[in-house]
Amino acid sequence: MTEYALAVDLGGTKVESALVDEHGAVLAASRHRRPTGSASTSEQLAAAVTGAVADALAALPADARLAGAGIGSAGPIAGTSGDVSPLNLPAWRDYPLGGLVAGLLPHGVPVTLRMDGICITLAEIWTGAARGEENVMGMIVSTGVGGGLVLGGHVVTGRSGNAGHIGHVQVAGFDDLCACGARGCLEAVASGPRSVAWARSEGFTGATGEDLAAAARTGDEVARAAIERSATAVGRAIASASALVDLDVVAIGGGFSHVADDYVALVQQAVSEHSDFAFVTSTRVVASALSGEGPLVGAAALVHRRDLVV
Amino acid sequence: MTEYALAVDLGGTKVESALVDEHGAVLAASRHRRPTGSASTSEQLAAAVTGAVADALAALPADARLAGAGIGSAGPIAGTSGDVSPLNLPAWRDYPLGGLVAGLLPHGVPVTLRMDGICITLAEIWTGAARGEENVMGMIVSTGVGGGLVLGGHVVTGRSGNAGHIGHVQVAGFDDLCACGARGCLEAVASGPRSVAWARSEGFTGATGEDLAAAARTGDEVARAAIERSATAVGRAIASASALVDLDVVAIGGGFSHVADDYVALVQQAVSEHSDFAFVTSTRVVASALSGEGPLVGAAALVHRRDLVV
Repeated sequence: MTEYALAVDLGGTKVESALVDEHGAVLAASRHRRPTGSASTSEQLAAAVTGAVADALAALPADARLAGAGIGSAGPIAGTSGDVSPLNLPAWRDYPLGGLVAGLLPHGVPVTLRMDGICITLAEIWTGAARGEENVMGMIVSTGVGGGLVLGGHVVTGRSGNAGHIGHVQVAGFDDLCACGARGCLEAVASGPRSVAWARSEGFTGATGEDLAAAARTGDEVARAAIERSATAVGRAIASASALVDLDVVAIGGGFSHVADDYVALVQQAVSEHSDFAFVTSTRVVASALSGEGPLVGAAALVHRRDLVV
Repeated sequence: MTEYALAVDLGGTKVESALVDEHGAVLAASRHRRPTGSASTSEQLAAAVTGAVADALAALPADARLAGAGIGSAGPIAGTSGDVSPLNLPAWRDYPLGGLVAGLLPHGVPVTLRMDGICITLAEIWTGAARGEENVMGMIVSTGVGGGLVLGGHVVTGRSGNAGHIGHVQVAGFDDLCACGARGCLEAVASGPRSVAWARSEGFTGATGEDLAAAARTGDEVARAAIERSATAVGRAIASASALVDLDVVAIGGGFSHVADDYVALVQQAVSEHSDFAFVTSTRVVASALSGEGPLVGAAALVHRRDLVV
């Protein structure tokens, strides 16, 4: 009998849900989404989650078993209780998302909720670019910069469930104001929008990461410098992280990581040349091997790969 | 029957050894030391360790049992095999310190070696300022800046045994050249010698951390600014660390942490005011509760508190 996990991925613009089997395969017919968004009320958000989950559950084959539900949520979250306070969904503060999903399932089906960055990292280890590795950081470089950690073969959850905020590790030599209120955070320096803003301050006239990519391909020096600036900052933050937790491998995904063919190589170069500490500079930086299904596969890993979670 | 651990603490200027019981008490008559130093040959270092260990073992009471040996070593180390490459002891590179100590013990007595910063952290959890806590960073602010991590109640060892190098986490807004070759590392900004050097660049005429402490007490504004600069940098690095691993408590010891009565309070203030992320700013910063026996107690924790190590 096939065992499925119900996977839920809650983000700032949409919620997705699907059934995922023990091998990490998403049951195509079960994948459904609803919009979320910062203007949504709490009731609208709850209706979006309920709708996506109900649609996914309706696709459960008659001869299959539901092993559990895994939820990846935009952070911050509140511990491992299932309560969430996503920065970009202000209607939900300490909202019991885990409880909401549990109420949609047959009695007794276990529900596990973690930050989306943790789920991405689990997906890289389960089916992606860090298969079988024990000391891993998964990273997303996009509108924001986020991530998650697995150390010694186990997820790092942290006191409040918020471990993995690599975007809010500081980068030497910068003091850009961050949305979190601090200065010099990686996200404030290296995200897609911040990289475009820096290029514009140097005379670039494009407006998006895609514009930056296109300009760099045609030899625009400012666009190229903006890309190198981002990759170098990401490399420095990885070096800080590896000094602190001694990583094997960092897998980088997210839209802005595709801004140049050599973006991940530039990050690796910044790490490799960072210092005289071999345990830092030997940290491998690789491109994510996840598809757009990565967040759902990672949420399902909370069920199917409990060996990594507890 | 009392069970003792043989504890060994290898540092850049000395090696110490002692017997430590199951309650973390050091058997006074068993505590012995030998000088080490960067000019020592490999043979001299081996003789120093052998001498200190032999003296400690000779104090084992007739009715007691030797449960194991725990070694805390200056870093970097090479994995968990017992091999060490201490930065300040150049004669030893991938030297089998664990094997050397095992050869001095009765056959079959287990030997465990970890970085000294990890041992300090274990000591804080076992008998110090972080008793019973699960997500802890122990820190030393002295000639260098080092530390160790316990997350989810378990030591973070890392791929190569070098997790805990908080001194080589970068600090935004700084680009001071570090001994490790990178720029803007916490150690390069906030250590005792670097704080004195900064004060001297601003006109201070003293030469030591003690001079800085004395001048600040009498109202010297540059000395006070140097102390606040160090504490603020330490706070920022702690904020980066807590963003990444979501800490409960950070315990700070080391000579320079005593440079002002409010040094730890200044660090706490920098953390508390760092950003809008409550999971970061609520990280508690406390003064170490360890005596000078802390490194030996921590090495013994590798034996007596294996629940934290594995």
